[in-house]
Amino acid sequence: MPYFRTTIDTLEAYQPGEQPLPGADVVKLNSNENPYPPSPHALAVLREIQGEELRHYPRPFADEFRTAAADVLNVSPDQLIVGNGSDDILTMLFRSVTDSGRGVAYPVPTYVLYRALARMQDASVTEVPFDETFTLPVRQLVEANAPLTLVASPNSPSGNRAMNDALAELAEGLDGLLAVDEAYVDFATDSALDLVGQHDNVVIVRTLSKSHGLAGLRLGFAIGSAELIAALSKVKDSYNVDAIASRVGAAAIRDTAYTRSVVDRVRTSRARLATGLESIGFRVWPSDANFLLTRPPDGAAGMIYRQLKTAGILVRYFDTPELSDKLRITVGTDAQNDRLLEALGVRQEP
Amino acid sequence: MPYFRTTIDTLEAYQPGEQPLPGADVVKLNSNENPYPPSPHALAVLREIQGEELRHYPRPFADEFRTAAADVLNVSPDQLIVGNGSDDILTMLFRSVTDSGRGVAYPVPTYVLYRALARMQDASVTEVPFDETFTLPVRQLVEANAPLTLVASPNSPSGNRAMNDALAELAEGLDGLLAVDEAYVDFATDSALDLVGQHDNVVIVRTLSKSHGLAGLRLGFAIGSAELIAALSKVKDSYNVDAIASRVGAAAIRDTAYTRSVVDRVRTSRARLATGLESIGFRVWPSDANFLLTRPPDGAAGMIYRQLKTAGILVRYFDTPELSDKLRITVGTDAQNDRLLEALGVRQEP
Repeated sequence: MPYFRTTIDTLEAYQPGEQPLPGADVVKLNSNENPYPPSPHALAVLREIQGEELRHYPRPFADEFRTAAADVLNVSPDQLIVGNGSDDILTMLFRSVTDSGRGVAYPVPTYVLYRALARMQDASVTEVPFDETFTLPVRQLVEANAPLTLVASPNSPSGNRAMNDALAELAEGLDGLLAVDEAYVDFATDSALDLVGQHDNVVIVRTLSKSHGLAGLRLGFAIGSAELIAALSKVKDSYNVDAIASRVGAAAIRDTAYTRSVVDRVRTSRARLATGLESIGFRVWPSDANFLLTRPPDGAAGMIYRQLKTAGILVRYFDTPELSDKLRITVGTDAQNDRLLEALGVRQEP
Repeated sequence: MPYFRTTIDTLEAYQPGEQPLPGADVVKLNSNENPYPPSPHALAVLREIQGEELRHYPRPFADEFRTAAADVLNVSPDQLIVGNGSDDILTMLFRSVTDSGRGVAYPVPTYVLYRALARMQDASVTEVPFDETFTLPVRQLVEANAPLTLVASPNSPSGNRAMNDALAELAEGLDGLLAVDEAYVDFATDSALDLVGQHDNVVIVRTLSKSHGLAGLRLGFAIGSAELIAALSKVKDSYNVDAIASRVGAAAIRDTAYTRSVVDRVRTSRARLATGLESIGFRVWPSDANFLLTRPPDGAAGMIYRQLKTAGILVRYFDTPELSDKLRITVGTDAQNDRLLEALGVRQEP
């Protein structure tokens, strides 16, 4: 259309994972959602919301959630900014740091939204390919020395975390910002949070969509130095987090015992699913997340993706040269994982 | 900070209207919120939300609300895009239309967010001053011929609508997009919605924050040609509207009888408040919105603002050359308006 920036004309809209209609009998293992519902405490808070609270604008910085998350993570509230999902946080990062003269770098394959957000800012992009082990390519990222470097850790679709010493070396070597996107970090055994106190150019991005089972609520946040968070907040929509999300999210993040129990179950199922897939010749990459990157025998990923879809099981297939022989499979409940394994021909224990 | 774009360093964060803490005994007439709660049908839907719905990502285009709003406004769903409040819609407009080579124009005084959003995009800004009657300066806006022209109608802080023939003349005269921000339109007697079918460069922006009493829920939308809406959707966050807002908002917008009754009450109170203020020498501009632009006797607006604040009554004071002698007063319930009038020395009927 003549009314828009040229870059918008050539931009393709982000393709989210397929979402079956509510009520459809589908095993949905394609969007890395949590197979378990959110904390009962969070749902109890949801029941308490009054019309009076909705009539008013929400607190601009989602104080209730911000305080809760800061408490749980043991940081100061002014080191934390809340977003309408972590996509909103990523948008703030791109809008405040990048433009046609200030580019971005990240290893690939990774979250495809990074590329789209760079395009919207007319920012140049340096994509550094991972090797087959998905080890963080620190040297090449330091050489790129972009104003904004992004590392998803655990990364999607590979599932593995970057080591903290590698991230520290990267932060040290960069003149610009390093954003560590820890959407899946609760399924891992360590995080990069401590780097925030050690490197003033590190910002950690988190979400409640995965470990807290709240993808539908849209709640994410970033942690960094207070100065960095203040700068980010300038490009925040005035009231980016609604009143319900702030209260419900606060209860969810404070319920650490529930989150731990859910995460433990997912990890146990992850190991069991990996074993099952390996038993029929799938290669399975080590995962610190709630999904597995896998390569079916003969790399027949596209065919298997379609067969599973016909059988009512959705997994994620990326039709790109580097990934077209692989499938990304979300860890579901054991019952869901068993349906998948059965469809793939794994003989189940009686 | 060295990590950010220069324009961010010099940008000031948007200052929302003061928000008293929950439970404070304050008459809040400063943010144009609705004095009445949202539709009981909407609150009933809120009670029904299940954890299972929150576990999944929401539908990317907020289908439930989109369909409901399209039904109510008698447009096709593909002519409508839903946002996390109308601020999110405005952000999409600025990101998709403006950049350092593509500027923006609007009459002033108006919603101050327009200027901030332009700054974030490094877009040049043409601000055309209203005259004292706040009549749309069509000729000057056509001469500016910006890639994005914005008209808040009803405008804040003036409260009046632009006439449809003036908007049509403007749309006709522009090569770029004309966004008509109708946040307050339900309190008026007409809207510019019909222009969408007549001019392919017109987009209408709406919100549920005012007439529907849902400022806390964050729900806004835009209506335009299907082609225009498709282009806008490319800069939309993938899941910008949460699952709760979509469902609750759908019930709210379908409850047109309730909205009409609330709007009628507010308009009746608006007339009564205007009469009260005029009785003590305030000038009151004609309003099509849920607030009044007023000029106290002698233009002592700053002093009165502070006195009212001390008395527990918040109104909006803009400390700018063109507005520092005026106050913008949200229409509250009759009881709230009476407290205001009493504090200003109006003798109440027994």
